Amino acid sequence: MIIDLKTAAKFLENNDDFLILTHAHPDGDTLGCGFALCEALKSCGKNAIVRCGDTAPEKYSYMGKLCEEDIEYENIIAVDVADAKLLGKEFEERFGGRVKLCIDHHGSNRLYAEQTLLDPSAAAACEIILEVIKELGVEVTKSIADCIFTGLSTDSGCFRYSNVTPRTLRMAAEMIESGADHSKINVIMFETKTRTYVALERLALESMKMFLDDRCAFITITRDMFRESGSDESEVDAIAAIPRQIEGVSVGVTMREKPDGTFKVSMRTHEGVDASAICAMLGGGGHPRAAGCTVDGDAQNARNLVVSCIEKYFKEELNS
Amino acid sequence: MIIDLKTAAKFLENNDDFLILTHAHPDGDTLGCGFALCEALKSCGKNAIVRCGDTAPEKYSYMGKLCEEDIEYENIIAVDVADAKLLGKEFEERFGGRVKLCIDHHGSNRLYAEQTLLDPSAAAACEIILEVIKELGVEVTKSIADCIFTGLSTDSGCFRYSNVTPRTLRMAAEMIESGADHSKINVIMFETKTRTYVALERLALESMKMFLDDRCAFITITRDMFRESGSDESEVDAIAAIPRQIEGVSVGVTMREKPDGTFKVSMRTHEGVDASAICAMLGGGGHPRAAGCTVDGDAQNARNLVVSCIEKYFKEELNS
Repeated sequence: MIIDLKTAAKFLENNDDFLILTHAHPDGDTLGCGFALCEALKSCGKNAIVRCGDTAPEKYSYMGKLCEEDIEYENIIAVDVADAKLLGKEFEERFGGRVKLCIDHHGSNRLYAEQTLLDPSAAAACEIILEVIKELGVEVTKSIADCIFTGLSTDSGCFRYSNVTPRTLRMAAEMIESGADHSKINVIMFETKTRTYVALERLALESMKMFLDDRCAFITITRDMFRESGSDESEVDAIAAIPRQIEGVSVGVTMREKPDGTFKVSMRTHEGVDASAICAMLGGGGHPRAAGCTVDGDAQNARNLVVSCIEKYFKEELNS
Repeated sequence: MIIDLKTAAKFLENNDDFLILTHAHPDGDTLGCGFALCEALKSCGKNAIVRCGDTAPEKYSYMGKLCEEDIEYENIIAVDVADAKLLGKEFEERFGGRVKLCIDHHGSNRLYAEQTLLDPSAAAACEIILEVIKELGVEVTKSIADCIFTGLSTDSGCFRYSNVTPRTLRMAAEMIESGADHSKINVIMFETKTRTYVALERLALESMKMFLDDRCAFITITRDMFRESGSDESEVDAIAAIPRQIEGVSVGVTMREKPDGTFKVSMRTHEGVDASAICAMLGGGGHPRAAGCTVDGDAQNARNLVVSCIEKYFKEELNS
């Protein structure tokens, strides 16, 4: 059931002992939501903990500590979790069917919780959490402000993406006024690269080839490149943004070799080119500007196959 | 003479025929200031043009067109120009001594104009221009909003730098509400790289070496690398941000070979390391987090010299 802000706040006011769950592979938004809500509930005299099916990357540690003890509370809240599957396998099995309140900003939310507070216009789930905190009448402390700012900033590419609204920016302004250390947070999130990432990026740029009158830029990352750089697949997402950034390119492709020898394709496009339609030709899917698929074969055959699908898409577009 | 907002607005209201000057090598902030102020003055029934000692990069063309005819008006306004020298050699000689009003946000402003409206707390000079436009009672149109948003966004690294204040973010929110195409502007400014830049970045990453227990990352760009990539010095600034971004690095150095064979050093540091103090050892200077100097010798000697100065600085810090 979809509920409104007041109903969500009432649920929090009328209950106690909250188990707040973030999604697996936690990011700045889900952790910011979890820790900000947890502190707000505690300041209302409630008992609350934050848990996650995975450990949180060290760079987020300034926001708080996940509860590592196996504690269960009956009032389970999922934050920024669009689907019970995203809790991770173990947590999905244990908690997925018993979530009482989900607070989320994904239009694709599966409505798996008893009650869902959903606002797809929010650039970050932290925007909704801040509204909940205000509805509860809780003061926004420096630590809450750090958490909320982190969610706003990380889910919007530091206010760069098209999901940013005037509300996002005004909330960020408020959080700075409440003490958020925006400058430090942005350095950690956007101005820090690991050495293994830089090494992988270098190899990725060396591998880049241009196709289709330079409208397609194609990066191929092999297992050898992971080994040479000391990096792993977790660092590929940032690289996947690069090929589309090149002037004149409308389709950027980053293809990484999986341990089983297949290739996972990440496609990013500019307006006017439907990445999900192209990836669908190869059995994949996704969003219009960002989609993916998996292809077999050696690197060169796999690349040729993907490029031929992009070419086919361009020709069909031309004829339609 | 330093003046306040009301005095600046009165000057604009009581005069006509304005020649607005941006700084040479124009960027998003100075051009945003120029075109926004020009449109505002025209909407007050005034005559105004924007000129610059250089041509403007094509990517800024959506904001307006610089006047290319050699027109002079008596009421000269300089926007985002901290020093008459920054008008460029020709414009400095012709106009530098006759600027009636300077609107700027650089604390280092030389107060070369008759009247200066200065706010060093502004992340972008466009923040001050927006206040002037409001003081004039002019409606913020979509085209003014695009100009002001561009200045706010480009001078703050898309709201990432420490110069961002709540006012910066609130003004950006307002500009979006007034029609600024924030998403398109951010793609042009922050998600678009030329092929020559990408080629130079690849070579720069290949050249990167670590020193001083990995606290210093050092990029060397030679004339050969400019030739091989097809790039030039105008694209080095973006690369200069890279070495400091590496985890654990507190001093990032990017050294480029000049046509005369000397090396220009760009140093970026994290808090706690004074780049201007290190560059001063080599006859240079700048700000605490960003400074520069010029060194002679072949690439390896030049690099060793810079690294030895950083080492000396670290040792002195340790002993102080």
